[in-house]
Amino acid sequence: MASAVVGRSISRVDAVAKVTGKAKYTADFFTRDMLVGKILRSPYAHARIKNIDADRARALPGVEAVLTYKDVPQIKFATAGHPYALDPKHRDKADRTILTDKARFVGDAVAAVVARDELTALEALKLIDVEYEVLEPLLTPEAAMREGAPRIHEDCEGNILSSFGYEIGNIEEAWQKADYIFEDELETSIVQHCQLENHTSYAYVDSDGRIVIVTSTQIPHIIRRIVGQALGIPWGRVRVIKPYVGGGFGSKQDACLEPIVAAMTLAVGGRPVKLELSREECMIDTRTRHAIKYKIKTGVSKDGKLIGMHIKAVANTGAYASHGHSIAMAGGTKFRILYPMEALKYEPYTVYTNLPVAGAMRGYGSPQITFAVESHLDAIARRLNMDPIELRLKNLVTEGYVDPLNGNRVRSCGIRECIMKGKELIKWDEKKERYKNQTGSKRRGLGMACFSYASGTHPVGLEMAGARIVLNQDGSVQLQVGATEIGQGSDTVFAQMVAEVLGIPVDMVHVVSTQDTDITPFDTGAYASRQTYITGMAVAKAAAEVKAKILDFVWGMTDIPAHALDIKDRNIVYKHSGEVVMPLEEVALHTYYDTVFASPITSDTSNNARINAFVFGATFAEVEVDLKTGKIEILEIYNVHDSGKIINPQLAEGQVHGGVSMGIGYALAEQLLFDEKTGRPLNNNLLDYKIPTIMDVPEIGVAFVETHEPTSPYGCKALGEPPVIPVAPAVRNAVFDATGVAFNRLPMTPQKVFEKCKEAGLI
Amino acid sequence: MASAVVGRSISRVDAVAKVTGKAKYTADFFTRDMLVGKILRSPYAHARIKNIDADRARALPGVEAVLTYKDVPQIKFATAGHPYALDPKHRDKADRTILTDKARFVGDAVAAVVARDELTALEALKLIDVEYEVLEPLLTPEAAMREGAPRIHEDCEGNILSSFGYEIGNIEEAWQKADYIFEDELETSIVQHCQLENHTSYAYVDSDGRIVIVTSTQIPHIIRRIVGQALGIPWGRVRVIKPYVGGGFGSKQDACLEPIVAAMTLAVGGRPVKLELSREECMIDTRTRHAIKYKIKTGVSKDGKLIGMHIKAVANTGAYASHGHSIAMAGGTKFRILYPMEALKYEPYTVYTNLPVAGAMRGYGSPQITFAVESHLDAIARRLNMDPIELRLKNLVTEGYVDPLNGNRVRSCGIRECIMKGKELIKWDEKKERYKNQTGSKRRGLGMACFSYASGTHPVGLEMAGARIVLNQDGSVQLQVGATEIGQGSDTVFAQMVAEVLGIPVDMVHVVSTQDTDITPFDTGAYASRQTYITGMAVAKAAAEVKAKILDFVWGMTDIPAHALDIKDRNIVYKHSGEVVMPLEEVALHTYYDTVFASPITSDTSNNARINAFVFGATFAEVEVDLKTGKIEILEIYNVHDSGKIINPQLAEGQVHGGVSMGIGYALAEQLLFDEKTGRPLNNNLLDYKIPTIMDVPEIGVAFVETHEPTSPYGCKALGEPPVIPVAPAVRNAVFDATGVAFNRLPMTPQKVFEKCKEAGLI
Repeated sequence: MASAVVGRSISRVDAVAKVTGKAKYTADFFTRDMLVGKILRSPYAHARIKNIDADRARALPGVEAVLTYKDVPQIKFATAGHPYALDPKHRDKADRTILTDKARFVGDAVAAVVARDELTALEALKLIDVEYEVLEPLLTPEAAMREGAPRIHEDCEGNILSSFGYEIGNIEEAWQKADYIFEDELETSIVQHCQLENHTSYAYVDSDGRIVIVTSTQIPHIIRRIVGQALGIPWGRVRVIKPYVGGGFGSKQDACLEPIVAAMTLAVGGRPVKLELSREECMIDTRTRHAIKYKIKTGVSKDGKLIGMHIKAVANTGAYASHGHSIAMAGGTKFRILYPMEALKYEPYTVYTNLPVAGAMRGYGSPQITFAVESHLDAIARRLNMDPIELRLKNLVTEGYVDPLNGNRVRSCGIRECIMKGKELIKWDEKKERYKNQTGSKRRGLGMACFSYASGTHPVGLEMAGARIVLNQDGSVQLQVGATEIGQGSDTVFAQMVAEVLGIPVDMVHVVSTQDTDITPFDTGAYASRQTYITGMAVAKAAAEVKAKILDFVWGMTDIPAHALDIKDRNIVYKHSGEVVMPLEEVALHTYYDTVFASPITSDTSNNARINAFVFGATFAEVEVDLKTGKIEILEIYNVHDSGKIINPQLAEGQVHGGVSMGIGYALAEQLLFDEKTGRPLNNNLLDYKIPTIMDVPEIGVAFVETHEPTSPYGCKALGEPPVIPVAPAVRNAVFDATGVAFNRLPMTPQKVFEKCKEAGLI
Repeated sequence: MASAVVGRSISRVDAVAKVTGKAKYTADFFTRDMLVGKILRSPYAHARIKNIDADRARALPGVEAVLTYKDVPQIKFATAGHPYALDPKHRDKADRTILTDKARFVGDAVAAVVARDELTALEALKLIDVEYEVLEPLLTPEAAMREGAPRIHEDCEGNILSSFGYEIGNIEEAWQKADYIFEDELETSIVQHCQLENHTSYAYVDSDGRIVIVTSTQIPHIIRRIVGQALGIPWGRVRVIKPYVGGGFGSKQDACLEPIVAAMTLAVGGRPVKLELSREECMIDTRTRHAIKYKIKTGVSKDGKLIGMHIKAVANTGAYASHGHSIAMAGGTKFRILYPMEALKYEPYTVYTNLPVAGAMRGYGSPQITFAVESHLDAIARRLNMDPIELRLKNLVTEGYVDPLNGNRVRSCGIRECIMKGKELIKWDEKKERYKNQTGSKRRGLGMACFSYASGTHPVGLEMAGARIVLNQDGSVQLQVGATEIGQGSDTVFAQMVAEVLGIPVDMVHVVSTQDTDITPFDTGAYASRQTYITGMAVAKAAAEVKAKILDFVWGMTDIPAHALDIKDRNIVYKHSGEVVMPLEEVALHTYYDTVFASPITSDTSNNARINAFVFGATFAEVEVDLKTGKIEILEIYNVHDSGKIINPQLAEGQVHGGVSMGIGYALAEQLLFDEKTGRPLNNNLLDYKIPTIMDVPEIGVAFVETHEPTSPYGCKALGEPPVIPVAPAVRNAVFDATGVAFNRLPMTPQKVFEKCKEAGLI
């Protein structure tokens, strides 16, 4: 089928809504009679509550309720936004209650107030008397793992949340076969999502006694389940509504606010309560990205073939599990397809500490391990005196490869073409030659890094998606999907898919962008870069079903068999000739109003995808390092992606721009800092925490290698998270190329660059 | 199947919502930034606009737009809430535009203002300069039909909208066979629905360029189509949302506000505009009940057998067609099944006049013709010296009878049992004997009247209904229906139906009460007493589909064939023994989360009902007439209904209470009055227009004869409109019995009673 709409850069379906302010976000629905919820946060990183007295707060006029751990169910629940698992062994770690009797990080929620206005609520927080028994704060994995360290969670000895790894082949044999063995240590930092819209929810009890939560989330259907679990009530008694969302990047793939806002409304007889986090709260009490320390040991043959690799990873997961138990493993899984080796041993330790909770963030463990491995590979290339690209080309995966552990198969693979394109765009060979012998105080260099990633979570997670389509009398349709538009443009590509199948223009596809768990088809949500691929399958299935029903109806009307018919440009046509049989509108009218045969056409479809598709790509960067100031300037940067067929090039490019910017921040500037003794956050605000602004980001080059993924109805694969993954190591490798100094810790701030360059004798 | 829920008086599912104010009506959604729309109404009943100048109004600060007929599409459309007909001959009469250049009644909309607030809008109305050419007002059908009368609509000669009737058998032969021929003239009045919630809408253009209308309507899907037609845009570009509705009684089975509020928002760039009618506006510019004059001639045998009847009816339909072309016919159709006769000739004339528009109102023509025929029958009984009940029993329909014109068949018929029950309740024979020889100034009497009605409109109208059910993880469900809860309790009986089929308690059926044409299954709406019967079929079909999917899923899980299984009390059980196989919740969880077989269960179902079911019943009334004051006191009143199986006796009783109250108002007090020269309304407010208050209504007795209607999944038939139908004639017949005076005009106000009694020499 020639694409009429798929593959074209149409405007976002929500472009006008967002530009004009007609798009409504959670906060836009707040009404004047809504009560305000606020949270009292622990000033200590680790402390037991000896006594908590809310009487003074409760007596303050305008205070409607004060909640402590005594007032909420003491049911342990997990907040991670994963589909529920029937097998208890595969469920997320349930290690927290709505309010705690033991603070585990500075900012942990120890009490909550519901009041008639914000000032009263804030005043009431001050009137809650808490007596703490301060415990030793464990602020690093090393401190938490040391013998005799206090337990952060009573049931977790050694504070190790998870140490589940794998070994492929025999690593000891690999060492024997290798000509060289190289080792490196690398480390990433704690960063925060900093999505535009802070976490915001409101909740009330409807007349049916059901809890309704309107919330800025990536995962409405999962939130419904988690709230049900946290409160110990049937899940059907919770309804979650997701309006437009101003970004999530994984921090909204978690039940951060919803259980407590539900408890708040229950505490005030079901009256509406809003809970808006400030930016400062958002940065410490939603989620962060795991800082991970890697020790990598690799055996290589003389000619640059990777024989075996052993990676030890220690991830700082903070005070509660969230996604912690799965992120180190996910990163260790998704990267390994890129360079198949005889032996690969992955040994991750995810450790509780008394810091804010780390969770899902764009790339879900891959940016960390990709930084480590791709930096390490450049170190190896340097030691082998090989071009880093040549080293990679010798080891890259090829089509047909099957992951030996999970059985996922590489059915489309454009990584070599991505590298060739990137090399050409940045003029790799020419510039390498030019920068060979630099001596000044400003040094230029080239770097690149590759990545592999997956499209969704199969076979680890359930990949259920749903779509419903309703055909209108004029031939236009409504589309409902359970997967969520959070800024990434999914509504637009879904509309394109439907338009393509049904032979109608995109403006005749009306996407219902609000998810409402009462009526929206079940879908696990927006994460794991799964939507275009996984939810796309459900959308394609629903659209095909509607098309089949339309053509069957025409068959009934005309006696022309459905298989001889097609829909083109809003007409039913003969497939063989294109001759118009009748307008689509005429069929649609008959489906509604034929006195005998009327049967309005809808499709209400689920798809349980048990398949996955690997995506690949590379970043190429050229930098100039000012040795005297330590400042790194990115002169050129290109991301080249194999994400299969690109449904909407302009939106895809936008997605890459965002990812690369985020990767640049990760490489050069971003880091959540904490007082080393107390664990108090030092820069949890957008002034002191440095995300790149438009002035800090160079022009970003984007290119796509459009392979065709056979398992996708449209040939597409994941693109949401990937752009961020290879950026930091590519920049790091360019700096390495420019200076010869191996920066193995993120971020490469001017101060650190200056210090290391000085140490290396460059200045 | 033994009923667990169906047939039980559970509380309304929206009871708490309505009592606590949590139920949101259209006006509850108004926001502060909403503009206000107001309508300029003609002061003349019949006038051509020679010139209209809105410049002064437009110049008033705060006025956003002024609309006249020049500013809106001059597309003629019909407002009647009927399903669209593919055959142009069966479409409603399109005789109006959004704003008119010719006023056809006092109150006709000649211009509209959109302003920032209500005061400004009202001020602006005064600044619109209209120059009228005043035409002769035609205020009665006689005036309108007289030779040489001006035309109210240019294309309608003689001002007769419709004169479509029928003849069964040969009426001339019937006269030959009859022993006696009796003639009477009877007349009903113009009354108004007076539902609690006035007509209210607001509209805006969404970011997609689509018009969204939130409105208090009985028929959201039909409104969508009518607005599309009125504006000449594709119907899919209109979205209609129906929140809770505070009553309609047929006045909201019409597009009264929606086309103009849509035009208003278009005039202000899509900003939200609200349009709320005052009670005064509502009473003249929504709809009224047709006043109809009847001439009835009946041939009867000596022993009281009705041989033939000839009915001439002249209906005053007011200024525009609305439902006018079908109401006289509908009344003439639904009554005729009650007393099958050899010959029946029905000759209706529906005539345009310069009065407010008559349209659909509870009973849709039946209260009028039933008043006429049932009053006439009592007159015949008196002349034959027969007991009125005996006369009826000699002539009533029996099961198996087929309507000779439309083929509808009587499959269940409890009319005799209804009469027997009513007779017993009111102690007919005993009191008849007691009141035989009264002489004082207060006279008591007994009266009764029967009726027949249908369940929906088949075969005249399309009877499409839709339901969608979503099964939650805990075994609860959501139910979406396109048919509308407008106060009558339909959401509750649908919930009972679903609970019954799925073996769950009613509080596990979450009814989505808001209709939204984007996503709500198509259904023509709430009218013609169709919901429990017609929409009930779709609900039953959807519930059965969900049940079948659940049992199939269990079959897959357990290898126990679906046919051996059932659902009882939230458990899957063996059908033969009731032994529990597993909890419903466990199946539901597997439908969501089984990694291989997951497939969340929904049903998205349509049903095109091509069948109908007759309902029957009778009112029995005992009155005391105070000859000196003309006041009629109703001492006892009973309505006995055959509506098949009663799904919820308490709600059904409430429905009857409401209908009887409305019937009492119709009998004794209500009438919209107009100045006989100018056509100006005289009592369009609730002070001067007398609807019964709680003090005016006696205790109302209700009884049901529960036949089983085989064509309904639950044995149920219509009940919504019927209670009002036989009340007025029963009261009239009781007054006739008490006084011997034949009151053949409604309403029987004290003044008229006094005058007629005086005339009859009683005082």
